[in-house]
Amino acid sequence: MNGNFISIEGGEGAGKSSTLSCIKHWLEEHNIDYVLTREPGGSPLAEEIRSLVLAPREEHVSKYAELLLVFAARVQHIQQTILPALEEGKWVISDRFVDSSYVYQGLARGIDKELIDELVNTYLKNAMPNATILLDVPVEIGLERVSSRGDANRLDGESITFHEKVRNGFLARAEENASRFKVVDASVAQDAVEQQIRKILDELLTQVSS
Amino acid sequence: MNGNFISIEGGEGAGKSSTLSCIKHWLEEHNIDYVLTREPGGSPLAEEIRSLVLAPREEHVSKYAELLLVFAARVQHIQQTILPALEEGKWVISDRFVDSSYVYQGLARGIDKELIDELVNTYLKNAMPNATILLDVPVEIGLERVSSRGDANRLDGESITFHEKVRNGFLARAEENASRFKVVDASVAQDAVEQQIRKILDELLTQVSS
Repeated sequence: MNGNFISIEGGEGAGKSSTLSCIKHWLEEHNIDYVLTREPGGSPLAEEIRSLVLAPREEHVSKYAELLLVFAARVQHIQQTILPALEEGKWVISDRFVDSSYVYQGLARGIDKELIDELVNTYLKNAMPNATILLDVPVEIGLERVSSRGDANRLDGESITFHEKVRNGFLARAEENASRFKVVDASVAQDAVEQQIRKILDELLTQVSS
Repeated sequence: MNGNFISIEGGEGAGKSSTLSCIKHWLEEHNIDYVLTREPGGSPLAEEIRSLVLAPREEHVSKYAELLLVFAARVQHIQQTILPALEEGKWVISDRFVDSSYVYQGLARGIDKELIDELVNTYLKNAMPNATILLDVPVEIGLERVSSRGDANRLDGESITFHEKVRNGFLARAEENASRFKVVDASVAQDAVEQQIRKILDELLTQVSS
């Protein structure tokens, strides 16, 4: 059995948590050793960096400082968690990964794609996901879900325009990286979402086993 | 009166704190508005990043994660503290700046100079010091001073070889950037060090006033 690195992407309220439990059940049913992890975060230091990035603060945070923080956390996450697990043949499921940087720091905050490419090429060689599941949901539905669960962090506080940019950004990433991305319609009922997820995982299992 | 950006560099126990008070007195004698700041740090977020970088921890910290953290803090420091002060015509005195990255993350930890150049060129344009005062002291003297004041952090715990690399690294930076660097013999008595510092400041004042 070979290791397999899958990232889960999507805007606020796309249903990442439910999808992660669905994936967890599927992995356990198939007796596959796995690591569930997340970004920013995924190692003790990376989780501390996550807290810095997500904390509401009065100080205006430079978008470039945020970008570098997110990549610092990612480099640590790869070294401490992702690569060791893949070397042991485990499946690694990451709640967000590099596509979130292209979307949140890139398109939404207005950082040039070339700057993110530069960081990816320098610091992320050989650490890209084999597959990325994008949970796509219209902005109104996503934000309604977030507000109904009473959740809030710095990113949730952004405007509708910001969330529209995020959604369109992920869809553009999926188009540009069509062989890696699996786009899931996450606006439907939870059962129907899970059906799509399980189908994707069945296909990925066939690929890594062959 | 124009703003003036001066960084102070040197290994452990080179006498940066005493030098900073000497500079502070000189600036007050000359009625110059100033900001004393430091790296990593220099803004609330950057100080939080500093704590992450300097904290002793069991987790092995990727040298690349450390490099990106230090540059994240630096970008925030420049935006929040250095540029606003320079725009108001103040003198900015920073306890460490970019040369410390070339030395600590570069030479001492073994990161290619090209990677640091890439970050400098991308994120630090127009934010380089006008002058850098290097306090040079033989490693044995520096470490003796540190141990006699009972100080310790993660960097102090490194080996003698590490500190030798740091000293030689700073001297090499000074040679490569001769017009910016002012090298001070910091192994002599405090009075003699202060005399060198005051002479440098007198010269810098003539330059920015002319």
